Amino acid sequence: MWGYVPYLLRKANQKITLNILKINSMQNIFSDRIADVPRSFIRDILKIAVQSDVISFAGGLPNRNLFPVEQLQASTNKVFENFGRQALQYAESEGLPQLREFIANEYRTKKGIDVDPNRVLITNGSQQGLDLLAKTILNEGEDVVLEEPGYLGAIQSFSVFKARFTQVKMNEDGIDCDALDKALEKTRAKLFYCVPNFQNPSGITYSTKVREKVAGIVDKYLTLLIEDDPYGELRFSGNVEPSFGKLLPHKTVMLGSFSKTVVPAFRLGWMVLPDAIYERVIVAKQAADLHTNSFSQYIVAQFLQDYPLSNHIELIRKVYGDQCKAMIASIKECFPKGVHCTEPEGGMFLWVTLPDGISSMELFEIALKNKVAFVPGNPFYADARNVSSFRLNFSCVDEATIRIGVKRLADSIDELLKMKR
Amino acid sequence: MWGYVPYLLRKANQKITLNILKINSMQNIFSDRIADVPRSFIRDILKIAVQSDVISFAGGLPNRNLFPVEQLQASTNKVFENFGRQALQYAESEGLPQLREFIANEYRTKKGIDVDPNRVLITNGSQQGLDLLAKTILNEGEDVVLEEPGYLGAIQSFSVFKARFTQVKMNEDGIDCDALDKALEKTRAKLFYCVPNFQNPSGITYSTKVREKVAGIVDKYLTLLIEDDPYGELRFSGNVEPSFGKLLPHKTVMLGSFSKTVVPAFRLGWMVLPDAIYERVIVAKQAADLHTNSFSQYIVAQFLQDYPLSNHIELIRKVYGDQCKAMIASIKECFPKGVHCTEPEGGMFLWVTLPDGISSMELFEIALKNKVAFVPGNPFYADARNVSSFRLNFSCVDEATIRIGVKRLADSIDELLKMKR
Repeated sequence: MWGYVPYLLRKANQKITLNILKINSMQNIFSDRIADVPRSFIRDILKIAVQSDVISFAGGLPNRNLFPVEQLQASTNKVFENFGRQALQYAESEGLPQLREFIANEYRTKKGIDVDPNRVLITNGSQQGLDLLAKTILNEGEDVVLEEPGYLGAIQSFSVFKARFTQVKMNEDGIDCDALDKALEKTRAKLFYCVPNFQNPSGITYSTKVREKVAGIVDKYLTLLIEDDPYGELRFSGNVEPSFGKLLPHKTVMLGSFSKTVVPAFRLGWMVLPDAIYERVIVAKQAADLHTNSFSQYIVAQFLQDYPLSNHIELIRKVYGDQCKAMIASIKECFPKGVHCTEPEGGMFLWVTLPDGISSMELFEIALKNKVAFVPGNPFYADARNVSSFRLNFSCVDEATIRIGVKRLADSIDELLKMKR
Repeated sequence: MWGYVPYLLRKANQKITLNILKINSMQNIFSDRIADVPRSFIRDILKIAVQSDVISFAGGLPNRNLFPVEQLQASTNKVFENFGRQALQYAESEGLPQLREFIANEYRTKKGIDVDPNRVLITNGSQQGLDLLAKTILNEGEDVVLEEPGYLGAIQSFSVFKARFTQVKMNEDGIDCDALDKALEKTRAKLFYCVPNFQNPSGITYSTKVREKVAGIVDKYLTLLIEDDPYGELRFSGNVEPSFGKLLPHKTVMLGSFSKTVVPAFRLGWMVLPDAIYERVIVAKQAADLHTNSFSQYIVAQFLQDYPLSNHIELIRKVYGDQCKAMIASIKECFPKGVHCTEPEGGMFLWVTLPDGISSMELFEIALKNKVAFVPGNPFYADARNVSSFRLNFSCVDEATIRIGVKRLADSIDELLKMKR
């Protein structure tokens, strides 16, 4: 049943070349922009990984066992009873006022950032925030700076608008500041996209010092900083670091999401936008889909009112923290020397780097035979290349299974290293 | 309290010029494309119209009194009990399989169109379908042909991608075929967008003869036909006409929506795409927001399984049909000679044309003073102009109120005509 895997892998992360051999005039109808957009490699991998007895560290999913199902059901019934028809009608493009109030208040109380609810826009997951920003800001061929490795979804979104990418390497304490400064000076990029807390894919968190430096650097240029923070609440060790919304408020867009703290199916994210660009992003939102599912906005607003979110997050932190610890311990125990892994203080991912010249794509094929999956590093780079690093997810697999999976992975690495000797 | 209305009107349907006087470097960061997108005039009008004792024919909303609230609540509880965590997790970009099956089956049984569920994509309302098609098909400056008057949301969506518009006038039996042929020949537009059933804004339906002609014309060019059909089910008189998905399957994208037949808050629409373009539209969907709210997809799928949709639609048809009839009767009774209105066979709108040279924008200001609102025709034209026609919505106002509102409108028209004499 795995026969088609290598074929899929070869296709993934390449330009879409499907159908071009068909003799059909519709083949000539596409825009130039869509030809350059990579299909989501991860979503393709996930389709494989869920189909069998493979232990999957490939996912990027929150742990469904922790979903507050009963509470959400209670909140939903309350919404039906208290709001009924109103919660089922068309709604404002900006989003539900009470939900935007809640979000603004969280920034104020938890991060000391003065956020006006009128600068909050509710989106279909924070992914849509990227699409709206790209639309609003980027002309074709303009530059975007992002982290290396960087979030695949961002690369995908910006690709649709024919962005030119410059990636800046990540150190253990965040993005490389000198390289960032040089990249912005050289490209005059309008957007700098980053995930400063427990980055996807690397798990790295920017230190306060790096954040302050980055704010100073970005402030020198006509550059908008996009702080994507889907995992910020999921910190299981270390201290909270200041948001760019605090350090550089007039030039920072903060993206957030309920996908990892409540549930993903609602597709509820948000943007906090500087005054100067809010109006135009709303226009882009109207053109994109009028407004975000308002029924789910009512449910989440009710849920947040009735149940303290912090209690629920505490539970997630504990489980993810324990699983992360178990994974790191297993890696240290089983992986051969010369293999490095990051040690995240939160989030859902860690990042493994194989010795130079060893391909994580080759490892992936061996690992699948050994019934363990992960995401090879390639799609986190804007230019196609064969990298030696890969991403492991620890949110969805219990500690015992993590130990078995890491052992299988260690065996796979050994097997690959032997082949290369 | 109406003092700001004329100001708003002057601003609406113009290029967004907000903020440009502020001295702030962020003012220079925008893409060229967003500067040309009109803000939704209707949404701005709606904000005014709901705030007072105005009788509003301005909305485009389905009648909330007909929402199947109890059934949806029962279906939602079933989803929690039968699917629980699964319905709350991330899901496939394509949409929920059982919902796509239902949609395909409806086309098969109701319209005799052989639709493969694997060519159905669930979107955030059919509005998102327009965004995804524009992304996938249009290069900047390329041509789109649409109806005149045409759906404002389509003009907005395509504007984001810097489309060049050619509008083709509508006759009583649908689009003017000769003019369409000329427009396509001249512009070689890649997209022809139409709403052949009870069009928004005009209420006009294409006859079978016009449909067959249009299919033949479009087939001559490298043009994709977008058939947007949010109101098709809401037919209260006349006979069902064949879909372009039947007449021109390889070149037609069918857009549909549950917003008018179930509820709008879920933002559930769909696209049925020709094989040749399905894959790339999925890529655009992934980049836009990963997938549509899956919890709401589960709810609607459950609802459709447990309650015959046709019963519910029958109820909507009856109410809208009666209200439409009442509106037409009042118009015939009260409006001065020389004012024309369409007589829709379904949907939610009819279209009134004042004598030549009489501005519907001027009428709007008088009508608001007289406590009745509608949507002036201007935003349904891609090029700004002062038109003499306007849109009336009959779905949300009961028959008694319709009579009062139409009378107020008639008085307003008299007032305006007197001023012009």
